Amino acid sequence: MEVRIGVARTNKYAMRECGDSVETVERPRGGVSVILADGQGSGKPAKLTSSLVVNKTVALIADGARDGAVARSVHDYLYNMKDGKVSSTLTIMSVDLDTQTVVFCRNSNCPVLVKQDYGIDSYDQSISSIGVHKRMKPLVYEMPLNVGMILLSYSDGIQAAGRKRGKEFDLQHIYRILNENKAEDVNFIAQSILEYALDLDDYRPGDDMTVAVVGVSDKEAGHLVRRLNMVYPY
Amino acid sequence: MEVRIGVARTNKYAMRECGDSVETVERPRGGVSVILADGQGSGKPAKLTSSLVVNKTVALIADGARDGAVARSVHDYLYNMKDGKVSSTLTIMSVDLDTQTVVFCRNSNCPVLVKQDYGIDSYDQSISSIGVHKRMKPLVYEMPLNVGMILLSYSDGIQAAGRKRGKEFDLQHIYRILNENKAEDVNFIAQSILEYALDLDDYRPGDDMTVAVVGVSDKEAGHLVRRLNMVYPY
Repeated sequence: MEVRIGVARTNKYAMRECGDSVETVERPRGGVSVILADGQGSGKPAKLTSSLVVNKTVALIADGARDGAVARSVHDYLYNMKDGKVSSTLTIMSVDLDTQTVVFCRNSNCPVLVKQDYGIDSYDQSISSIGVHKRMKPLVYEMPLNVGMILLSYSDGIQAAGRKRGKEFDLQHIYRILNENKAEDVNFIAQSILEYALDLDDYRPGDDMTVAVVGVSDKEAGHLVRRLNMVYPY
Repeated sequence: MEVRIGVARTNKYAMRECGDSVETVERPRGGVSVILADGQGSGKPAKLTSSLVVNKTVALIADGARDGAVARSVHDYLYNMKDGKVSSTLTIMSVDLDTQTVVFCRNSNCPVLVKQDYGIDSYDQSISSIGVHKRMKPLVYEMPLNVGMILLSYSDGIQAAGRKRGKEFDLQHIYRILNENKAEDVNFIAQSILEYALDLDDYRPGDDMTVAVVGVSDKEAGHLVRRLNMVYPY
């Protein structure tokens, strides 16, 4: 099998810094995780917050901690570092080869969508962000790893796209993109959703926008070659 | 401008774990770094060592520490954690937008190749690995960031490819690949070099193989969209 991750991200219009952070990390017992955080506000302060959150998450996952414990620890860390005054969303999507499951943790107002053979489920239960409430729990889900699965999440800038221009972000459009594409096409899916949101905002994004997609597909023939590509315009 | 990173990696033949680790991290003041470590030995113990090294490096860079200090700290960390008994290579290649320079640190028997307008330089001065000597320093280089630059490094499995089969890894072939390609083509460059090494080893790699390439190119027209793609077969 093959896990593919596709991420596309852009800044709020006319802002130099992106308040969303996203990183990937290899899990010590096999598999990969992708971590998405949207820091409160925008610009530099938001970037510092979301970087703090994502980098702490990466470090704890790399240490071998389980995702639910990681989300709790990162909340406690942010709460202590910022004295409960700064919030951030945190979404962790993991393919865990040790347990042969997919695990995802949400502390975000944006859903995680999961495409399976039988259809698409949206995990969008209301849950608070991390960093501001003394007690908080992530919503943690675990399900068997199946070929063809796609996991998708995004930041608030995608969900709110078009709102200030009287247009509406239509989740059905995202469902259509998911239905029309396969687990191999994570890059295309991420790009298409970002493109859709940019279009709703007349290509002047009202907020930072990030889309992260994880796909589990059959392996291509040939050698087990891991590849990583990154494009970082500035 | 646009920074592109391309990484290609494969395991030693018939080994489940790869003793090379490679990760990327966004620099807190702008830019990205790619970190490559080759842990002593092969299989699980090598993987644990190189993961420890790479993840500590990622965490320190994310904290805002400068690369030279990071390499020294990671050495001290490995030396203390493993009581000076386990070595690892460590190569950090950074595009630092704050200083508008390219910085790379070597503690590896493999070179860093730098392609500029006027030609290719090989930085291959002899330097020890980290983790085993009480005192060690990385070789640190810094140069202005120019469009068209390519930085390239790889792990021992690439350099030693073919050796057990009486064939020889020809650095001139790598130079040719670099000369024939541009900074946009980092993925193709990484794949081509890995392919060349696999071929020398008759597609049964004698060691873990990793190639990491960083390119600085003109920006494509359009929006500042950051993209990350990862393929992780298992």
